[in-house]
Amino acid sequence: MTLASNAAMKHPMFAALLLLTAAPAYSQSAPPPPPQVPNYVAALREEALADNYAWEITEGLTTEVGQRMAGTEAEARARNWAVAKLKSMGFSNVRVELFDMPTWTRGPESAEILAPFPQKLVVAALGNSGSTPPGGITGEVVGFEDMAALDAAPDEAVRGKIVFVSHGMARTQDGSSYGAFIGPRARGPSVASRKGALAIVIRSIGTDHHRNPHTGGQRFADGARPIPAGALSLPDAEQLQRILKRGKPVTMRLTLVSHTGQGQSGNVIAEVPGRDPSLPPILVSGHLDSWDLGTGAIDDATGVAIAAAAAKRIMDVGRPLRTIRIVWFGAEEMGLFGGFDYRAKHGKEPHYALAESDFGVGRIWKVDSKLGKERETEARMLQAALAPLGIVPGSLDLADGSDIGPMLGDGAPGVGLSQDGTQYFDLHHTPDDTLDKVDLDDLRQNVAAWTAMIAVLSGGIEPDPKRRNRR
Amino acid sequence: MTLASNAAMKHPMFAALLLLTAAPAYSQSAPPPPPQVPNYVAALREEALADNYAWEITEGLTTEVGQRMAGTEAEARARNWAVAKLKSMGFSNVRVELFDMPTWTRGPESAEILAPFPQKLVVAALGNSGSTPPGGITGEVVGFEDMAALDAAPDEAVRGKIVFVSHGMARTQDGSSYGAFIGPRARGPSVASRKGALAIVIRSIGTDHHRNPHTGGQRFADGARPIPAGALSLPDAEQLQRILKRGKPVTMRLTLVSHTGQGQSGNVIAEVPGRDPSLPPILVSGHLDSWDLGTGAIDDATGVAIAAAAAKRIMDVGRPLRTIRIVWFGAEEMGLFGGFDYRAKHGKEPHYALAESDFGVGRIWKVDSKLGKERETEARMLQAALAPLGIVPGSLDLADGSDIGPMLGDGAPGVGLSQDGTQYFDLHHTPDDTLDKVDLDDLRQNVAAWTAMIAVLSGGIEPDPKRRNRR
Repeated sequence: MTLASNAAMKHPMFAALLLLTAAPAYSQSAPPPPPQVPNYVAALREEALADNYAWEITEGLTTEVGQRMAGTEAEARARNWAVAKLKSMGFSNVRVELFDMPTWTRGPESAEILAPFPQKLVVAALGNSGSTPPGGITGEVVGFEDMAALDAAPDEAVRGKIVFVSHGMARTQDGSSYGAFIGPRARGPSVASRKGALAIVIRSIGTDHHRNPHTGGQRFADGARPIPAGALSLPDAEQLQRILKRGKPVTMRLTLVSHTGQGQSGNVIAEVPGRDPSLPPILVSGHLDSWDLGTGAIDDATGVAIAAAAAKRIMDVGRPLRTIRIVWFGAEEMGLFGGFDYRAKHGKEPHYALAESDFGVGRIWKVDSKLGKERETEARMLQAALAPLGIVPGSLDLADGSDIGPMLGDGAPGVGLSQDGTQYFDLHHTPDDTLDKVDLDDLRQNVAAWTAMIAVLSGGIEPDPKRRNRR
Repeated sequence: MTLASNAAMKHPMFAALLLLTAAPAYSQSAPPPPPQVPNYVAALREEALADNYAWEITEGLTTEVGQRMAGTEAEARARNWAVAKLKSMGFSNVRVELFDMPTWTRGPESAEILAPFPQKLVVAALGNSGSTPPGGITGEVVGFEDMAALDAAPDEAVRGKIVFVSHGMARTQDGSSYGAFIGPRARGPSVASRKGALAIVIRSIGTDHHRNPHTGGQRFADGARPIPAGALSLPDAEQLQRILKRGKPVTMRLTLVSHTGQGQSGNVIAEVPGRDPSLPPILVSGHLDSWDLGTGAIDDATGVAIAAAAAKRIMDVGRPLRTIRIVWFGAEEMGLFGGFDYRAKHGKEPHYALAESDFGVGRIWKVDSKLGKERETEARMLQAALAPLGIVPGSLDLADGSDIGPMLGDGAPGVGLSQDGTQYFDLHHTPDDTLDKVDLDDLRQNVAAWTAMIAVLSGGIEPDPKRRNRR
């Protein structure tokens, strides 16, 4: 399907209607027919649908390391594992770029209603939460339906109390609900702190109904004293809402012990050297660190696996013109430390394109890119190369990614392969982010898209007899 | 649909084939056409599809009490709640029959792989588990694929080690997989103990893939010293299997602190008095206690709610000939203590029929009964009254139920309304057994079936002007 106009592309339903009802009138402004996809790109894409590299990385990292919280010894073990794995796969220039960072680690945590209906609730501290004493704190709960209600509350309604924000998140394919509903996590703790709250608990930013809380990053704004800040699982948040609706004062004991310190993280880098080392590299990436509750299977073992598996599949058939640089970023979850460190060290070097896989393992459904007007043919080739995987053409002026975000913001070119996020926030940042949630067919569709993407951008692959090591 | 023969009923596919291919040849032995269902039974059944009583009980009990572990103060609060609720609904003779019992309560628990791949696993102690010291125990893990492998293992392969049994459970509509796969929980701890094991962890007896372990009852057989016995969540059990498959010695630290003592439980009883008090009562039941990890929404708040809601709906339209006795049993989970106490106190009194709802809130798909040959017309009336709800006729020589099991075994008549258990073991005995899992439409279908069942057995309902308090 071709689209009638760039403007219509931003409104796909409108565009589809145009095509159905008025296509002839728009035919003069229609884009040129899609470029012919070279046979080797199509072949690489189809072969990648039987990929096992990505599964092996995902299974190995989650099994042999497990959780790998930023700045901890677990993340250091993950780096060692990564270096060994990337070397064993045959990549070149495997190295670690270390950096220092502040750390936050979780201790014992629990929540309990003491009155009027004594019962335990399931809670997990948010990143950078203040710590309670080991025995916890006790306070009256005051509930707010959303951030607007908390913002509007006078200080005296909040002071000395445990704030509860129950705003629920909706399910969306493109993940846009995350940004729209993240307020209670991102701003709630700071707002509650400034109003003098004893602590805050929020309804988890998530879409499932299991007793698994969703943790996540937050940072106390300047001037806001750190207070204990936790997320209740969705069933527990709804339970607390029902209890509050009974109208009696609700007393909670909240224990969220945590520790802060200084630690080290690092980016793990590996390459498929290009035939012309003077050309800017294609950067493909994910992040190596994870939250501490699960084993970080979909956030983001699959991401690092997809990027590396695709690069490996190119390497298996020959040498690309341009260098492919794999970056497994460190310390993404606690504030993009790896992305900022890479920018500090390499941001002034030209990159041919940046791409990051960090939205789970749902099938890729849309390709965006921002390669510049002079590379529009290449961008359309990319769309054409991915269409057989059921991927719709998206914007030619957009790319995104967490760790690569700062450099994209600086103007670096990039590609965004959008994964279906409909189920992503069932698992995101929970204990349930484990290997059993990874669908192999979906993982392989991702690898196929990334392989085709790299092949299109590679500048051509020359067979290398020494490297014909396919499987 | 009528069935060709009683023998074919036990093989429904065969029976269906008979009807399709050879029905005329069997027409002489076919049962008589189903009896005409009285209008008032049909009307009660249809009105019950808009029931709110069962939801109100389920919501209230799970919200205002939460978990109610057998023999604890939480179960005592549940009895107080139950008495107040049943009185407020207008039932008569509301009373508690107390009994003493041994108690077992959960303390802090955790599991951690120390080597070769350090990481935490999610575990919950099984009922009657032995206790570890507060700091836990440490041992090497030895894995077995099923009970047969553990049974066959020489003592020296197990002695001083932490046994792990990874046998997986299948999903079935009728719940038959529970009995078939419960071995690791029911027998595993005793067998491991007798072979000298330090402790045992099993793959949870469940069908979901969330980080929520399934606890459950077990009892150390005579001569088996209590050892710590826990269940890993399914993702954690599979993780441990993967780690063991790497072939390196696996060391685990296991903390399962628990406490034993003596406590009190009780059965809560209420009645709709019949017009003829000399007739044996119809007993409808569920169990009031729950495991401690969730709020016992589907095990068994919905059960007590369905039984009481159905009785209430009869009471709303008039007085039945026979007394309807509601029993909310205590301490089912820890060993049918309530059922045995009821039998000890009332087992010699005649009952017109016993029925219990204790298999979640899935739609009822089959009706079994065991009312005796002389009441076959009544049994067929029951089948006919339930057919419009999509309920297939089952056996005329079978009834089941947990707490009523001993009295059914003694020969008391009973009815078994079989709930669809396909999803039941996703939640059973886990922290995830919470109110949000209750589907209101399914709950109402259950109430409608129970209401129709009681109406058929009631001996007729006479309008009572004082009680016309429908809603």
